[in-house]
Amino acid sequence: MNKYKVVDNYKELQSKICTKLEKLDGRAQFNTDQWTKPLGQGITKILTRGDAIEKAAVNYSVVNGKLSSAMQHALNLEGDDTYFASGISSIIHPENPHAPIIHMNVRYFELGSGKAWFGGGIDLTPHYINLSDAKEFHQALKKLCDKYDTQYYKNFKQQADDYFYLPHREETRGIGGIFFDHQEVSGKEKFEHYLAFTSDLAKAYPVIYASLLNKNRNQPVKTTEKQWQNIRRGRYVEFNLLYDRGTKFGLESNGRTESILLSLPPDASWTYRNEPEAHSAEAKTLALLKKDVNWLDMDLNAEVG
Amino acid sequence: MNKYKVVDNYKELQSKICTKLEKLDGRAQFNTDQWTKPLGQGITKILTRGDAIEKAAVNYSVVNGKLSSAMQHALNLEGDDTYFASGISSIIHPENPHAPIIHMNVRYFELGSGKAWFGGGIDLTPHYINLSDAKEFHQALKKLCDKYDTQYYKNFKQQADDYFYLPHREETRGIGGIFFDHQEVSGKEKFEHYLAFTSDLAKAYPVIYASLLNKNRNQPVKTTEKQWQNIRRGRYVEFNLLYDRGTKFGLESNGRTESILLSLPPDASWTYRNEPEAHSAEAKTLALLKKDVNWLDMDLNAEVG
Repeated sequence: MNKYKVVDNYKELQSKICTKLEKLDGRAQFNTDQWTKPLGQGITKILTRGDAIEKAAVNYSVVNGKLSSAMQHALNLEGDDTYFASGISSIIHPENPHAPIIHMNVRYFELGSGKAWFGGGIDLTPHYINLSDAKEFHQALKKLCDKYDTQYYKNFKQQADDYFYLPHREETRGIGGIFFDHQEVSGKEKFEHYLAFTSDLAKAYPVIYASLLNKNRNQPVKTTEKQWQNIRRGRYVEFNLLYDRGTKFGLESNGRTESILLSLPPDASWTYRNEPEAHSAEAKTLALLKKDVNWLDMDLNAEVG
Repeated sequence: MNKYKVVDNYKELQSKICTKLEKLDGRAQFNTDQWTKPLGQGITKILTRGDAIEKAAVNYSVVNGKLSSAMQHALNLEGDDTYFASGISSIIHPENPHAPIIHMNVRYFELGSGKAWFGGGIDLTPHYINLSDAKEFHQALKKLCDKYDTQYYKNFKQQADDYFYLPHREETRGIGGIFFDHQEVSGKEKFEHYLAFTSDLAKAYPVIYASLLNKNRNQPVKTTEKQWQNIRRGRYVEFNLLYDRGTKFGLESNGRTESILLSLPPDASWTYRNEPEAHSAEAKTLALLKKDVNWLDMDLNAEVG
């Protein structure tokens, strides 16, 4: 029974991620909510107002559901009406605007017909893009991907660029990362491969973030930088409520609202026509919120924006 | 040419609304942006950081577009692929949490085939529901509706309850008001009727709001009340990005993003499992965010929550 193996693995990984993030923050602890809905159950862990982490959420859930015909259509699964799903989904909103927002998700999906697949990814949304941090982040993902398949980074980086995009802003959500879906597992070998890959991703997540947070958590912060952080958080809200498939699926399948919307930032702002001054750090960041940036080979001395 | 009459009326009404709101605020003035897109043109007026109004937006636009097949399907208009639309849409976010958010929209839609209709409404979203204000608001709307048709208030109030609803929160957005769509106009008489009705609605809007704002703009405010205001503003963001048809239509038809998203509040917050204390003003408000409340006959001395 493949699915129980996923459940056990992911549940344990949730705890490990939380332990590492508590150590990283150094002050705040996670609170735990175990919940049961008609659809399934889950464990929601949330840390707020830490030393460096303003809000971190780590959700784990297992659901058994029925796919409405609208959902079958949306997911391209006409005719398959029951599913099992288990996953971990996590987000960190740091206090300091010079540190980035990070998001990680791994998930396993199995239909009544037996068809099954893994999905997931890690992506980064800096309020201010630091080229050296961006390069380090993508290098870490490439290294992890290469252990499993040397095509993964390239393919999944492309999918992240395409997925984390706000067409109405003509902006990417952040600097992307990797994103994959529908990695079908037909036999034992494939299953073990993707279970190991997604588990490694979940394990690497707090480690990758620790480096980025520690470099930036004590940077001095101006009031205008906090305002910019809130505007970028507003874009994050726009993406998650307008486009994110996980959010949409969760709400439409009558999931637990408080867990689904944990990805939203503590605060966000909207300012009409916020247009940063030319050559400002904000303008340089905006200029880099584009698809198809080659972060790995980025020249760290290049002038942008 | 009916449509030019709508255009002229609505454009003039936009100016009148702004003049009244400036007088009401007493300090801030509207800034004006005239814009042109391939799709059409518009005038966006925005007032920020006033004496009592934190943000007011009054949008006017005229667009000529093509309906994608997805939009034809969403709007139930299969086969009709060109449209003309003109409307005013406005929102006010007050500084004081004891004053309510208000929203007004009137619009005219005409298809290539000649089929045409009006839509619109006014609805109120108090951060704290004051029963006497709620009753006054609904009475004002009923009085206005009754001048045109004694069935309008009842029908359009029901439609507002159904439309301004967040299923994932099991909450209405606020205390509703009136909302109507697809009021078809086949002959001159019908057209004049609805043009007059929607114009009266737009004229009444700043007058209705003036009374509600003036009663509450100078109420003392606690920090916890500002926090609650931001949480309620967060729900407003959720409604507008997840469910609002105008927002969806605007973004999908490649409208002007900055004008479409002007309805979003200056700031918003999200707090995990924010559950007000029993019998608090916040709990009493939540208990009233339900469909089918009879605000007109509300007993002002009733204990709620």
